[in-house]
Amino acid sequence: MELDLTLDAVTLTRALVDIESVSRNEQAIADAVERALTTLPHLTVVRRGNTVVARTDLGRDERVVIAGHLDTVPLNDNLPSRLDEETGLLHGLGTCDMKGGDAVILRLAATVPEPVRDVTYILYEAEEIDSEFNGLNKLSQSDPDLMQADFAILMEPSDAVVEAGCQGTLRVEVRTTGERAHSARSWRGVNAIHGAAGVLARLNDYEARRPVIDGLEYHEGLNAVFIRGGVAGNVLPDECVVEVNFRFAPDRSEADAEAFVRDFFEGYDVRLTDTAPGALPGLDRPAARDFIAAVGGVVNPKFGWTDVARFTVLGVPAVNFGPGDPMLAHKQEEFVPVEHIERCEQQLRGWLGGL
Amino acid sequence: MELDLTLDAVTLTRALVDIESVSRNEQAIADAVERALTTLPHLTVVRRGNTVVARTDLGRDERVVIAGHLDTVPLNDNLPSRLDEETGLLHGLGTCDMKGGDAVILRLAATVPEPVRDVTYILYEAEEIDSEFNGLNKLSQSDPDLMQADFAILMEPSDAVVEAGCQGTLRVEVRTTGERAHSARSWRGVNAIHGAAGVLARLNDYEARRPVIDGLEYHEGLNAVFIRGGVAGNVLPDECVVEVNFRFAPDRSEADAEAFVRDFFEGYDVRLTDTAPGALPGLDRPAARDFIAAVGGVVNPKFGWTDVARFTVLGVPAVNFGPGDPMLAHKQEEFVPVEHIERCEQQLRGWLGGL
Repeated sequence: MELDLTLDAVTLTRALVDIESVSRNEQAIADAVERALTTLPHLTVVRRGNTVVARTDLGRDERVVIAGHLDTVPLNDNLPSRLDEETGLLHGLGTCDMKGGDAVILRLAATVPEPVRDVTYILYEAEEIDSEFNGLNKLSQSDPDLMQADFAILMEPSDAVVEAGCQGTLRVEVRTTGERAHSARSWRGVNAIHGAAGVLARLNDYEARRPVIDGLEYHEGLNAVFIRGGVAGNVLPDECVVEVNFRFAPDRSEADAEAFVRDFFEGYDVRLTDTAPGALPGLDRPAARDFIAAVGGVVNPKFGWTDVARFTVLGVPAVNFGPGDPMLAHKQEEFVPVEHIERCEQQLRGWLGGL
Repeated sequence: MELDLTLDAVTLTRALVDIESVSRNEQAIADAVERALTTLPHLTVVRRGNTVVARTDLGRDERVVIAGHLDTVPLNDNLPSRLDEETGLLHGLGTCDMKGGDAVILRLAATVPEPVRDVTYILYEAEEIDSEFNGLNKLSQSDPDLMQADFAILMEPSDAVVEAGCQGTLRVEVRTTGERAHSARSWRGVNAIHGAAGVLARLNDYEARRPVIDGLEYHEGLNAVFIRGGVAGNVLPDECVVEVNFRFAPDRSEADAEAFVRDFFEGYDVRLTDTAPGALPGLDRPAARDFIAAVGGVVNPKFGWTDVARFTVLGVPAVNFGPGDPMLAHKQEEFVPVEHIERCEQQLRGWLGGL
């Protein structure tokens, strides 16, 4: 399978979609991407696993990263791609998340040989599964220099509007304990499920903080995502566990967020199980300011966690900007508007070309 | 394997214990019981499955049932039986629950040929497993006449003291619903686990009723026995289910009990999943009064549900009275005090003999 980078970005999106690349099965698409980029004399190409990095090296004052993942969630009877000419929507697995963005990256790589800012294009594997397989995560450990830049754009679907920063996420188990007893003699025991009433009452009293950072209003959230307890139908349970997910604005560190949750559930047994930092929008950097202006000035806060946080950890401000509605990601019926693909390409081309 | 009913009840208990009879494997023990009882000319023996019924038919004014189950819970490295002469404790699977009681039944059947009240001895299968297999339940459907009596004694372990009646039990699922949303945008959804706070708060406010019936104080209980909810670690759950077990005093019918629970959780989705009636102590019947006097006048209320309720449904008052500590039932280390077996036998012999 060869990719022809002289074709338009929509046709290229279709070609990428039709190379099935469910996570851990990215070899074919990564091979095609690597071959296509290697033919371009203005780029230096490096491959790590099924992650492909292509760089210009023109000695510009600034360097930017433009990145996208090559994998998709599992097949769900939604291949091959199907273009509806009437509505202008391209349907199929990965159209929205995020081969439309990948096609824009490949088109820019092929057709902007002398950008006004040096560019590092990264097309990576295994974003949709556990972090240990994530190509960008691996690259940040094996070759952090390849991710260094003044600014990074992740072409995740964002309705072709800039979504800046991202909120952090943290999970804790809040546990109540009791004492087992036969339910026919319940006064001999202590019911741990009843003890969880106070945990849920506090969650109901929670009021979300909505801090404004770089002009963007974030919106925190504290939610039980699982609850479990019970031994048998005739036994008072001696343990109940409420799993709580805290989504925190990027002005909090992971440590601050953990301290907040521990304080919130003071008096209960709280165990941290999972945490990932947020990412500040970083819109004060010159490269970021120019980019925002080039794409029309509209910026929204990103609520969900994305790989932009991996750049933040390296000190690189990063935003999400890509074709497709993020609410359609992972849906059987995902699609991308052709107009989004074309607009993203045009705006990025203008910015890289210094127009 | 032959049972020698001329031996004392403790030796007979050992013989019964050493015939392994985990539920659904009662054929050998039922065969031995049937053969032993069939040799006794004063009894009429009927067999249904692995349930054996033996009756006197002396035309007495009263008839009493004395019943015990032949099965045990699964083996747990606790066979064969072991008699500790020093402590007077007989150890092993089924010693407490309830072959000590079965041995007393067989001894009475063999050695009281002319009781002052007619007796129906019932030794039945599959008490420890699902009700559909229960020998007494089956008999109440196939041959309810064989269970008819003025009074019934179930020789379940009760510390050799009368436990009268039993509490009913009922289970409901109390369900809260919400609307799924990504936990990063939690304001777009409704968290069903948070909605369960009110269910648990009501359970914490519950005050147990303790009605006195025939001089016995019962003690109701309303407890969550399971709670479950959750879709994924990043999703607001749209359903939470609290499974609640209500143990109710025998002055309530199942319908009354259900109405109480539905009223208690008014405003929530309540689904009945399981119900079994309680049993009134029925201590006002002459046969019951005489029996209580014969065993020393002490009567306690039975809190747990037992097969006595199957007699109540047929209009037969019933009590639990048998050797062994009920708290040891189903324990690996179960045992029965020899003294309990001897005392139960002696007291029942006196009552049946009109002493």
